[in-house]
Amino acid sequence: MGAVVVRIAIGVEYAGDAFCGWQSQVHGRTVQDVLERALSEIAAVPVRLHCAGRTDTGVHASAQVAHFDTVASRPVTAWVRGVNALLPPAVVVRWAAAVDETFHARFLATERQYRYILHNAATRPAMLAGRVGWFHVPLDEVRMAEAAECLVGTHDFSSFRAAGCQSKTPVRVMHEARVTRQGEYLLFDFRANGFLHHMIRNLVGALIYVGKGRYPVDWMRALLEARDRSHAAPTFTPDGLYLCGVCYPPRWSLPGDGRIIALPQLPLT
Amino acid sequence: MGAVVVRIAIGVEYAGDAFCGWQSQVHGRTVQDVLERALSEIAAVPVRLHCAGRTDTGVHASAQVAHFDTVASRPVTAWVRGVNALLPPAVVVRWAAAVDETFHARFLATERQYRYILHNAATRPAMLAGRVGWFHVPLDEVRMAEAAECLVGTHDFSSFRAAGCQSKTPVRVMHEARVTRQGEYLLFDFRANGFLHHMIRNLVGALIYVGKGRYPVDWMRALLEARDRSHAAPTFTPDGLYLCGVCYPPRWSLPGDGRIIALPQLPLT
Repeated sequence: MGAVVVRIAIGVEYAGDAFCGWQSQVHGRTVQDVLERALSEIAAVPVRLHCAGRTDTGVHASAQVAHFDTVASRPVTAWVRGVNALLPPAVVVRWAAAVDETFHARFLATERQYRYILHNAATRPAMLAGRVGWFHVPLDEVRMAEAAECLVGTHDFSSFRAAGCQSKTPVRVMHEARVTRQGEYLLFDFRANGFLHHMIRNLVGALIYVGKGRYPVDWMRALLEARDRSHAAPTFTPDGLYLCGVCYPPRWSLPGDGRIIALPQLPLT
Repeated sequence: MGAVVVRIAIGVEYAGDAFCGWQSQVHGRTVQDVLERALSEIAAVPVRLHCAGRTDTGVHASAQVAHFDTVASRPVTAWVRGVNALLPPAVVVRWAAAVDETFHARFLATERQYRYILHNAATRPAMLAGRVGWFHVPLDEVRMAEAAECLVGTHDFSSFRAAGCQSKTPVRVMHEARVTRQGEYLLFDFRANGFLHHMIRNLVGALIYVGKGRYPVDWMRALLEARDRSHAAPTFTPDGLYLCGVCYPPRWSLPGDGRIIALPQLPLT
């Protein structure tokens, strides 16, 4: 008679500038590494994590979702409070929930939401260094929002795909692509079934070219239709990029109910 | 005939968790040290800074004010853009202005404003670790606001003074002492002619005792009137403390016009 294996889903928040990305590396300084070490300690057996979005170095998450299998029988609070006591300050497990063995954090995610926060001001940010992108030339967010409209729908995003991207297809379904201003900050909100490697940072770079007036609004559509990375703008810094929501089919009633989980607001006004 | 000495005032923003406080130390890892090195390089002669509020290790500033004298004749932009190019990411000069030799960033400041941001939620913050304080038990902000009212006015704040405080008098004039809630965050806003060492962190610690129900609202007044540090709560963490405004007499028309300068809002909602 074998031990009973349970599958646990967790919601994770982390400051990406404190880690070398999500995915495990030999040096062990990734989000996955520190989480697996803490989970394994609580489980008293090795734990292997699978996540919804393998964020790059410097990319943050307010609502990453991951899952693991374990034979360890623990109250759900142990996977939150117990694990958090063992994690470094820049990462925290926000919730944990038992799921059945058909759940998969990566393969079953139907939608991912990312937000890019850009500080558009003459002086670079200090208090939020590494947490927001920065562009010193005033940007026209109305032109940028208009340029972003063409991205919504099912498209071949090859023009915004990193050279090393391992995805089988460059086609993605974009549900939302918005640019809005809040004072000195520009917010770029993207929702899609998935994203190619560096796709959002490449989109932000291109939209900034439009916003500063280097290219007209319809350049964005031309770029998309060209399906050629060499035409686009440079990849923008990861500093302001946040994975802030992952959706699953409603039968998995995860905390946040499978809906987009909002980023916490920092009320500094 | 000697060289002409000019006095320059600067506005500085920094993330306090990246430095060992403001005041210069032998190891050189303080805000004053990195600023003086950058300013000295631009001036091509040594520069010595004087600031409005010598913040402790871990305390942040969105609107610190400092001044220095120099024989170096530079356009004002050199003290901003030139210096910023030499500073580490967690500190930035936001503005510079020539002032006459009667200005003094510390001795002429008529008012200082501090804000403490407390994350009041079950799970500790990760993305804002080191940038907000955290208390996991739900706090009653109405009781805390009521308890804070007695602090306004001219008082002997000995009960909230650190043992090592070097101030000549424990008396301060408090203009504002407010506690408000924004969702999961509590904001503590204090304005006074000046603050004793650890005074705000001690006030926050005491107000949390009231907010969690350990003591009644009028305990705060009893504490104040006791003028005895041994009766109060432990000093709370510096993580959520921001120096966010310094006022000078109106004859110095500094950027921000001598008025309280608001903290930047991070629009993460």
